[in-house]
Amino acid sequence: MASAQGPKVAVLGASGFAGALAARLLDRHPWFRLGAITARAEAGMRLEELYPHHRVRATLVEPDVDAIAADHDAAIVAYPHGASSEAVAALHERGLVVLDLSADFRLRDPDVYRQWYGDVHVAPDLFGTAVYGLPEIHREALRGVADAGRLIAGPGCFPTATILTLAPLARAGLIEDAIVDAKTGVSGAGRKLQRTTHYVDVSENVHAYGVAGHRHQPEIRQELAGQGMDPAIQPVFVPHLTPVDQGELVSCYVRPTREVTAEEVAEVFAEAYADEPFVELTGAEPGMRDVLATNVARIRTHVDPLSGRILAFGTIDNLWKGTSSQAIQSLNVAYGRREDEGLEA
Amino acid sequence: MASAQGPKVAVLGASGFAGALAARLLDRHPWFRLGAITARAEAGMRLEELYPHHRVRATLVEPDVDAIAADHDAAIVAYPHGASSEAVAALHERGLVVLDLSADFRLRDPDVYRQWYGDVHVAPDLFGTAVYGLPEIHREALRGVADAGRLIAGPGCFPTATILTLAPLARAGLIEDAIVDAKTGVSGAGRKLQRTTHYVDVSENVHAYGVAGHRHQPEIRQELAGQGMDPAIQPVFVPHLTPVDQGELVSCYVRPTREVTAEEVAEVFAEAYADEPFVELTGAEPGMRDVLATNVARIRTHVDPLSGRILAFGTIDNLWKGTSSQAIQSLNVAYGRREDEGLEA
Amino acid sequence: MASAQGPKVAVLGASGFAGALAARLLDRHPWFRLGAITARAEAGMRLEELYPHHRVRATLVEPDVDAIAADHDAAIVAYPHGASSEAVAALHERGLVVLDLSADFRLRDPDVYRQWYGDVHVAPDLFGTAVYGLPEIHREALRGVADAGRLIAGPGCFPTATILTLAPLARAGLIEDAIVDAKTGVSGAGRKLQRTTHYVDVSENVHAYGVAGHRHQPEIRQELAGQGMDPAIQPVFVPHLTPVDQGELVSCYVRPTREVTAEEVAEVFAEAYADEPFVELTGAEPGMRDVLATNVARIRTHVDPLSGRILAFGTIDNLWKGTSSQAIQSLNVAYGRREDEGLEA
Amino acid sequence: MASAQGPKVAVLGASGFAGALAARLLDRHPWFRLGAITARAEAGMRLEELYPHHRVRATLVEPDVDAIAADHDAAIVAYPHGASSEAVAALHERGLVVLDLSADFRLRDPDVYRQWYGDVHVAPDLFGTAVYGLPEIHREALRGVADAGRLIAGPGCFPTATILTLAPLARAGLIEDAIVDAKTGVSGAGRKLQRTTHYVDVSENVHAYGVAGHRHQPEIRQELAGQGMDPAIQPVFVPHLTPVDQGELVSCYVRPTREVTAEEVAEVFAEAYADEPFVELTGAEPGMRDVLATNVARIRTHVDPLSGRILAFGTIDNLWKGTSSQAIQSLNVAYGRREDEGLEA
Repeated sequence: MASAQGPKVAVLGASGFAGALAARLLDRHPWFRLGAITARAEAGMRLEELYPHHRVRATLVEPDVDAIAADHDAAIVAYPHGASSEAVAALHERGLVVLDLSADFRLRDPDVYRQWYGDVHVAPDLFGTAVYGLPEIHREALRGVADAGRLIAGPGCFPTATILTLAPLARAGLIEDAIVDAKTGVSGAGRKLQRTTHYVDVSENVHAYGVAGHRHQPEIRQELAGQGMDPAIQPVFVPHLTPVDQGELVSCYVRPTREVTAEEVAEVFAEAYADEPFVELTGAEPGMRDVLATNVARIRTHVDPLSGRILAFGTIDNLWKGTSSQAIQSLNVAYGRREDEGLEA
Repeated sequence: MASAQGPKVAVLGASGFAGALAARLLDRHPWFRLGAITARAEAGMRLEELYPHHRVRATLVEPDVDAIAADHDAAIVAYPHGASSEAVAALHERGLVVLDLSADFRLRDPDVYRQWYGDVHVAPDLFGTAVYGLPEIHREALRGVADAGRLIAGPGCFPTATILTLAPLARAGLIEDAIVDAKTGVSGAGRKLQRTTHYVDVSENVHAYGVAGHRHQPEIRQELAGQGMDPAIQPVFVPHLTPVDQGELVSCYVRPTREVTAEEVAEVFAEAYADEPFVELTGAEPGMRDVLATNVARIRTHVDPLSGRILAFGTIDNLWKGTSSQAIQSLNVAYGRREDEGLEA
Repeated sequence: MASAQGPKVAVLGASGFAGALAARLLDRHPWFRLGAITARAEAGMRLEELYPHHRVRATLVEPDVDAIAADHDAAIVAYPHGASSEAVAALHERGLVVLDLSADFRLRDPDVYRQWYGDVHVAPDLFGTAVYGLPEIHREALRGVADAGRLIAGPGCFPTATILTLAPLARAGLIEDAIVDAKTGVSGAGRKLQRTTHYVDVSENVHAYGVAGHRHQPEIRQELAGQGMDPAIQPVFVPHLTPVDQGELVSCYVRPTREVTAEEVAEVFAEAYADEPFVELTGAEPGMRDVLATNVARIRTHVDPLSGRILAFGTIDNLWKGTSSQAIQSLNVAYGRREDEGLEA
Repeated sequence: MASAQGPKVAVLGASGFAGALAARLLDRHPWFRLGAITARAEAGMRLEELYPHHRVRATLVEPDVDAIAADHDAAIVAYPHGASSEAVAALHERGLVVLDLSADFRLRDPDVYRQWYGDVHVAPDLFGTAVYGLPEIHREALRGVADAGRLIAGPGCFPTATILTLAPLARAGLIEDAIVDAKTGVSGAGRKLQRTTHYVDVSENVHAYGVAGHRHQPEIRQELAGQGMDPAIQPVFVPHLTPVDQGELVSCYVRPTREVTAEEVAEVFAEAYADEPFVELTGAEPGMRDVLATNVARIRTHVDPLSGRILAFGTIDNLWKGTSSQAIQSLNVAYGRREDEGLEA
């Protein structure tokens, strides 16, 4: 929009689902200005050729860190895991505010990182310095990030849904153990062509994947421990692919540390999220469709009368609150703007 | 088929999804003969007008228990819960072999029945006498049912998937507690028009339902207790609706009674299902699509290295193995036929 | 939004898909103010309980024409065909600017109306006086409608797509005859529970409907004749239901009045839509997904080298450009605002 | 099945959708025996690993024409267009009955072939000698093909649906011109990973493709001309991709050579298909779902009262009647078996 006057933000990796949506949200944002959008294979195309419904007329260019650094205030990096840290470090070094959507900077314990990702980190100096970009949990740390020149690590979509759904219980000291059965839409697997994203394989199908150990588990554990959960607890996390485009639902089964009532649990959540603009506590089971194309998380809790377990269901749009609109929310906080600026729709 | 020479089987309630499929399977069966198919609102229509792809030319008639009893050897009753027992009792009294697809005769403890279904049972004398029609569990009891004139209670689709996925662990004494997160296709909700089955409500959506207590829980508990699980254990059972027509997946999270290895658990299942024609143990996560329009259950197990929990995933087609083809399988056993007769495709 | 200062607009029938979306768009509009939203069965509920992703907190109230007339400047009426005209007439009489989304005021020839809708019109004085709310065709007539106190008849979704796709050819005198094969998503059938909108009937299915004569044909013919097509031509119009939530595609097969080249046809469209903010001419076949949740129509034309026929494909979102966002576009024009105000996203 | 005693049939290219289904149908066939099933990349895998629901335990082997020729009576070749003719020619030369599912042998005019497929044909001597394997049209020619050692060219899925829907009109001399708007499920595009088969691109989308000229047009024209349509007529054929797994619907708009009534047209079809086991004339608009996983074609006709055009809608399952089950039907005819043997379900 002509009236936007804020920082100029580049999007690296804008041909993927997450980067393209980030570009769209910046393009419509009343204050931030969308700068360069980059892609390799698709350089030279306008973004609207790839994603017509986003209606972003800007043209994709080859990524050139020097050129971007010279001309931008901030950058969102939407590269695959492992491919991100080099660009992130380079842009960060030049003084840009960087929000990285990959997993490269989410973990803080280098041993845990090595255990799950195996190889040496490209940017060891930056590792562990990022603010985890989940505003409902790290709002204070995000404030001032822009001035302090620190890095923001955008959470994974599954951790976003799971942490929002379990953090109040972690803070209340109620988690004895936790099982997280997650369901996701296909866009979470990205735009790359794979057997598991062929329409015929997805249609009329639901199956688990990554059961042996999904990389989002340590991220969930780190953040819940940060909220008070005993770090010795290993939440079980199993994602399932469903025939949905955008959407994510986590069904959490928590053995409480003591007997609780449904009312007590409801109260814990009501207090935790009383002032949150993007968390809604619902009277009906939340469904993916409720939050489609919004930055909203919806949560409902129960206490199972037979087993005494706490059941907590949380849903988000994996591309929006799970990734790209949450990035905008984080940048809004980091720059001291109204938290829902550009995210009302 | 002209060559069919076996018992003549009526299907009551053949305009619904389950009854219609049962009629189709009987119509194609090499030995059973499809007799009357009944419906109220749709009486006078040919079944193929309602379900063209089933290609059953028979005409739906008003249900008339006397006429059916006079002219049939057996009946499958596909009425809603509560509406079934009167017809079942009448047909049973006239000496027909009856397989009831409703929940009316699945439970054996009248107190549990009252707790979950509330009202007085229409056929208290028959209550508790039925054989639970899950051949992999009750094969011996099913044999001879036809001669003994006993009743078969077809299991619910969720219990079918869950019991098959957990019974080997129950028998091995390995279940300390169990959480069952189930995903189902929409056909499980039946043909009735409801808000939750409108295409627009289902598309791009996944949500839990019946969280406060789904009636399949006591059925699951009864049968697992019968296999050796401590009856004091209350499995947590939560179903989720997914944008799928036919299919069901149960993701089971079991805290074992003692530390186990993945190999040990795999061996328990391999032994349990070594000779089962319709249970397949897979090397990949089972998906609903794998078993679409078959009588097959597919199961895979893991032991989560972080938490030590046993993870067991089982999938069936809710209308086939979950309901109607399993009914044929049970009748095959009851009449001493080859168990997969008419179910090969 | 707090800053909105424009006319206060009520939405009658806001529990349906179209009315709810209209309410959402007004709620987010920078200038119009959303007033009362009405429904009968759902009165007392907040709109976000029915449609969480719209995030409209307003509460549905019983329709009360007097109260609405006393307190509003304009109204969008989203009632079923036939049920609309009484409320429309009453509100119009009280001086409100009324945009009716039903078919009651779209036709201008009473004989044609009787032929397709059969019965006497409830508001014969108003019949034929409405401006047809398709801004790309009737922009001039729409300007000043607000001041002149005239009525706007919102076009049907199929006519919107079809007229936009064929009007340039009509104006160029190129239509000798026309066949329109339309594909629609299920939301076009409305929120009412019907056999044809049950998920199981829609999934894995495409079929034609209303073949004997769909009521959108006379609307299409009236408007194309208004653009220069010979009124004696009877376009063939056949809609098909597809397993899609929101979306509409019309595939138009036109025998031209004279031999034309693809370039010539492309030029006709380029000129016709050079300055249109919401019509995009594409280099690839337009797909429903391209325009999802936008007010955009996308069109591509070909000349079939074998038959010489003009092929023109047009796509819109049936609920947005086909109904509710187009209503906002029309009100923007009627009130002299920027045409895309509140419709950028 | 153990009792099968008929010819041993190999399937070349059994890892694709069409070849795999052909293998399944042969595996279940009461008379034909499934022989070798071949694939390159997947050699060594059991077919059920790729397609669990087909439940074919046979192992895929590298294609070896010599070995197959030495040990089989017949072969179904399911290779891509262009890649097929070499293997077909080699197997045919060794005396096998060959049914080719590619387009290589469907056309009979070498000039037309060159115009649409460009390059020189690998097997020019065989070109033009195949019987077109659409039993409803070429039943007499198919009879005896097995004895005469001739080749069968399996029709394309679109031509199958279109020719069945238009042949009676061609024979009755009623086609002045014809427009065919086709809708297909995604399985028609094959198992190869492509942008257009990614779930996210297919979901909530319908679009035309191959508009500039789809290779199925000359095949349709050849066969309709063979049934009496003026060969100068160029039917317009435009396919559309829909979010469906298996299914195909053709909507045909025919300008008749003379004025006709709906009854007259209905009579033409009733006579044409009176004795066909796999063609059903319906009283409701045929939908893809009606014929899912069957060898059936369903057709309905209308005469549009406004324009006088004949409207004919035909639906098939693109993988079954459109490809693989029709191949079995053709082989049944070629070997003098009952035409529906192995295809009842």
